[in-house]
Amino acid sequence: MPRIAIIDVGSNTAKLIALEYRAGHSWRQLDELRAVVRLSSGLEEGGALRPRPFARGLAALRTFASYAAAIGADDVVATATSAVRDARNGPDFVVAAGALGIELQVLDGAEEARIGALAVANGLGVRDAVSLDLGGGSFQLAEIAGRRWSRGASWPMGAVRAHERFLRGDPPKPKSVKALRSATRAAVAAWRAGAPPPVFVGLGGTVRNLANVHQKRVGYPLDLLHGYRLPVDALASLAEDLAGMDAARRAELPGLNRDRADIIAAGATVVAEVATSLGVSELLVSGQGLREGLFYPFLLPDAPEHLLDDVRTFGVLNLMRQYHDDPVHNAHVRALALALFDGLRPWHSFGEVERELLGHAAWIHDIGMAVDYYRHEHHGQALALGRALPGFDHREQVLLALLVRYHRKGSPGVDGYASLLEPGDGERLRLLAGVLRLAEYLERGRAQRVTGVEVRAEGDGIVVWARSEGDVHLEVEAANLRRDLLAQALGRPLTVVGRDDVEAAA
Amino acid sequence: MPRIAIIDVGSNTAKLIALEYRAGHSWRQLDELRAVVRLSSGLEEGGALRPRPFARGLAALRTFASYAAAIGADDVVATATSAVRDARNGPDFVVAAGALGIELQVLDGAEEARIGALAVANGLGVRDAVSLDLGGGSFQLAEIAGRRWSRGASWPMGAVRAHERFLRGDPPKPKSVKALRSATRAAVAAWRAGAPPPVFVGLGGTVRNLANVHQKRVGYPLDLLHGYRLPVDALASLAEDLAGMDAARRAELPGLNRDRADIIAAGATVVAEVATSLGVSELLVSGQGLREGLFYPFLLPDAPEHLLDDVRTFGVLNLMRQYHDDPVHNAHVRALALALFDGLRPWHSFGEVERELLGHAAWIHDIGMAVDYYRHEHHGQALALGRALPGFDHREQVLLALLVRYHRKGSPGVDGYASLLEPGDGERLRLLAGVLRLAEYLERGRAQRVTGVEVRAEGDGIVVWARSEGDVHLEVEAANLRRDLLAQALGRPLTVVGRDDVEAAA
Repeated sequence: MPRIAIIDVGSNTAKLIALEYRAGHSWRQLDELRAVVRLSSGLEEGGALRPRPFARGLAALRTFASYAAAIGADDVVATATSAVRDARNGPDFVVAAGALGIELQVLDGAEEARIGALAVANGLGVRDAVSLDLGGGSFQLAEIAGRRWSRGASWPMGAVRAHERFLRGDPPKPKSVKALRSATRAAVAAWRAGAPPPVFVGLGGTVRNLANVHQKRVGYPLDLLHGYRLPVDALASLAEDLAGMDAARRAELPGLNRDRADIIAAGATVVAEVATSLGVSELLVSGQGLREGLFYPFLLPDAPEHLLDDVRTFGVLNLMRQYHDDPVHNAHVRALALALFDGLRPWHSFGEVERELLGHAAWIHDIGMAVDYYRHEHHGQALALGRALPGFDHREQVLLALLVRYHRKGSPGVDGYASLLEPGDGERLRLLAGVLRLAEYLERGRAQRVTGVEVRAEGDGIVVWARSEGDVHLEVEAANLRRDLLAQALGRPLTVVGRDDVEAAA
Repeated sequence: MPRIAIIDVGSNTAKLIALEYRAGHSWRQLDELRAVVRLSSGLEEGGALRPRPFARGLAALRTFASYAAAIGADDVVATATSAVRDARNGPDFVVAAGALGIELQVLDGAEEARIGALAVANGLGVRDAVSLDLGGGSFQLAEIAGRRWSRGASWPMGAVRAHERFLRGDPPKPKSVKALRSATRAAVAAWRAGAPPPVFVGLGGTVRNLANVHQKRVGYPLDLLHGYRLPVDALASLAEDLAGMDAARRAELPGLNRDRADIIAAGATVVAEVATSLGVSELLVSGQGLREGLFYPFLLPDAPEHLLDDVRTFGVLNLMRQYHDDPVHNAHVRALALALFDGLRPWHSFGEVERELLGHAAWIHDIGMAVDYYRHEHHGQALALGRALPGFDHREQVLLALLVRYHRKGSPGVDGYASLLEPGDGERLRLLAGVLRLAEYLERGRAQRVTGVEVRAEGDGIVVWARSEGDVHLEVEAANLRRDLLAQALGRPLTVVGRDDVEAAA
C-alpha cells in the first residue's frame, strides 16, 4: 500500500501525519509527529519571522524529512499557511525547507479555505454550511454550497496573533477582550449578513480543544470530537470563563491542552464571537482539516473534485476493511438482514432510516474479531467507538456500536449512552439487533448456505423460511437458538425453518 | 493458512474449536461451538448410553460436521472420552458418528492423560507435576516428569457421574458428600503416596469454573483463568459452601456457569479432596486441555514429541504475530533495549529475570497498533491481558502489559494490579519501561538507522552514544525528548548523542 506523509507548518504547530491507503478503497493513519513551533511569535504585520521561531520551524522540518525518508513515504506533501505567507522573509523559509528536501507550498487564504472545505465535505458529509478554520496565525471563513467551497476570506487573527495583538495582561484586561470581540464582529459583518447558515462548522486545534474542555465539563460519555455539537451559549460562557482566568489556572482545566493555555482565551473569544455574529446556535466540530483535505486527492484521484460519493458508506467500509475484511460473509449477513427487515414490515413500524443503520451495522458486526474471537462483540463495540465515523452523528454511531455489541448475545440496553439517545431508541435497538442476530446465525457456517429468507404469518406467529441449496441444519438450529430477541421485539412467536424441516414434514 | 476443527465429545459437554495456524509459527482461534449433551446422564456402570443422551450427542455432531464443512476445515479431529468409552453401546455411537462423516476416536484413559499432559507442558511450561483432569464422566490423574507424561490412571467419577452416583438430595445430604470424599481419597491413596508433587495442575471445565467463582469472590483484577493459582484452603471451603447450597442458589453465584449448577458440588468435592489427599497447597489452573493437546501435533509436526522448545518465547511471538507483525522493527527495538540494559548494568541492580522480561516486552510493544495508532499503548495493554500468556504467571503478564502501556509515554504505576505484584516491582517497571522507551525512540523512524548503542559515564551523568551509518537526527532528538523516565529510574542525568553531534563538536 502506498504511504504518504502530509506536513502542515502552522503558525502555532507543525505536524506530520503518515497514512497508508489504497486509492478509492481504504486508508489508515500510521503515525503522527507534532512540534509546537510558534512560528508567528513576535511577527508584526508586514514584518519578518524572528530568528528563533524560524529555527524552530526548520528543526521540525528537518525531523519530518528524516522521518518521511525512514518510513519510505511514496509522497510527501508539505504546506505552510499564514505565518510563512504573511512574513517578509517567508520565501527564505521556503528556500531553507527546500535545502532539507522539503518542497513547501505556501497556500494563500482561498486555497487554504478550499482545502478545508473538502475535508468538511468528505469528513462530515455536510452540504451547505459556513466553516471557520482557526489556526495560530489567521482564521478563514468559507461558504460551502452543495458540498463545494463557494467563497471565503481570511483574517490575520488566529489564536497566537489575536493573543499577541489584542490581549493585555494575564488574566487579560476586560477592555482588551472587548476590543478583540469588536474586531472579530467587524470582520464577520463585512463578509456576510443575513440569515444564519444552516450549519456552522469549526476546524483546527483551538476548536477541537474547546470541544474537549466542554465534553469534560458536561461529562460527555464518548471520547469523540469529530461530529461533536457544541452549543453556542455554552461556547460563549466557556470563552468568558477562559478570558477571566490567568494562563496558569487555565492549564489546570480538565481537557485543556497545556501548550495552548496562554493563547486559548484569544482563540475561544474569536470562535464564540464568530458564532454569535453569524447567529447560529451550535458549532459542529470537524476533527478533519487541512491535512485531511490535502490527502483526499490521493485517496480519491478519480472522483469528481475528489468528493466522496457516499460519505457514510465509505466510512463504514473503511472501518470494516481496517479490522476484519471478510466482505463475503459481511455482505451476506447484510443481505439476509435487509431481507428480514423488509419481510417483517407488516409487524414493525420502522422505515428507511433504520434500514440504512441495519445495513451499516451488518458491514461491521464482526470487526471485534481483529482483537479476539472470544467476546468479539465487546471488542467490536469499542472499535466502533474508537474514532468518529464520518457522516454519522454521535447518536447514530452509538446505535451502530450497540448493534455490534448485541449482534450475537445479550439483552440490548442503552448502557451508559442514554444521554445521547432519543425516545424510542431502546425499541429501535432491540428490533434491529434481533434482525441482525437472526441474519448472523443464518450465516453461522460463514459459507452463504442460506441463500435467502421468506417471512410468513402462521396463526399468531411468524415463520422465517430459510432458502438453501444444501444442508442448512447448522444455520437453522443456530438461528432458532437465537431467535428470542427478535420474537420479543415483535411481540409474537417466531420460528425458523429450513428445507430439511420441509422434507421431514413431507 | 490451514484450518482445523477439533471436536471433543465429553460426558457433560460436546465442543468444537476451529483454529487457523501456520505450523511451527503461530495460531489463533476462529470460533467455538458448544452443546451441553450430558451423554453420561443415567449411565450405569456396565450399562448403555440412554436414548435421549445418545440423540443429543449425535445432534451436536451433526451440527459440528456441518460447521466444519462450511468453514472448509482442512482437518477434523474428533475424540470421545469416558461416556462413550465405558458404555456398552459406545461402538454404536461411533458408527452413528461415522454416518455423519465424523471419524470418532475413542480415547482410553491413558491416551487422554497423555494428551492432557502435552497441553500442560506446552501451555503452562511445567516440568514436573501431578495433573488432575476432571470431566463429566471420569477424572484422570497423571504424573508429568521432565515435561512428559510418566504414569496415570482414570476413575469413573467425573462431575456428572459423581453427582449421580453419590450425592443424594438438593442440597446434598452431608452423609452423601462424606461418602464421595472417602471414595476420592481412597482412589488417590491407591495411586500415589509420599511427598506432595512440586506442582498440582487442574484441567477441565469444572476446574475452570471453580477458579472463576473464586476470582469473583476475591475481586481478582484480571480476567484470566489459565495460570491462576487457587489456594487449596480456599478451594476446600468453596467446595463445602457449594455442597451446602441447593442448585438454584448455586446458579445465582457470581461466576458460576448455570449449566453446571447441579453438578458443580460433586465436581468441587472431588477436586478439593484430590488436592487435600495429595498434600498440595495450591492448584494451578490450566485453561488448555484435551482439545489443545490434540492440536499440538498439527502446530508442531517436527518438534520432538510435539513439545515447544521455549513456551514463553513462542507465546510472546504468537501474540505479536496475531496483532502486529512488524518483526524487523520489533527485533531492532529488542536488540537496542537489551544492549542498553547491559550497558547500564553499572547503574542498576537488575539481572537475567528482568532482562528476559524486557526482551519479551520489546517483541510485543506495538501490538496495540492493530487497533489504532492513537493511544496504541493503551490498546496494547488490553491486548496483552486479553488471553493468558503460556508459561508466564499472572504477575509477569501484568508487568509485560504495563511495559507495553508505558513504552511511549506516561509515568509508570502499578495501576489496579498492586495485589498481584511484589515489592520492588514499581522500580523494576520504571527502569525497564525507561529502557524500552529509549530503545523505541532510537528506532523512531522504524528504519534501523541507529545500529547500536554504547553507554558511558561522563561526570555525574550517563551518555548514550547512538551508532549509525546515516542521518539519525530524528532518532537522537526523539530519544532525548523521552529520556527522563530512564534518567529518573537511574537517579542521574542521561543524554543521547549521535554522530551528527560528534561532527558538530569536531
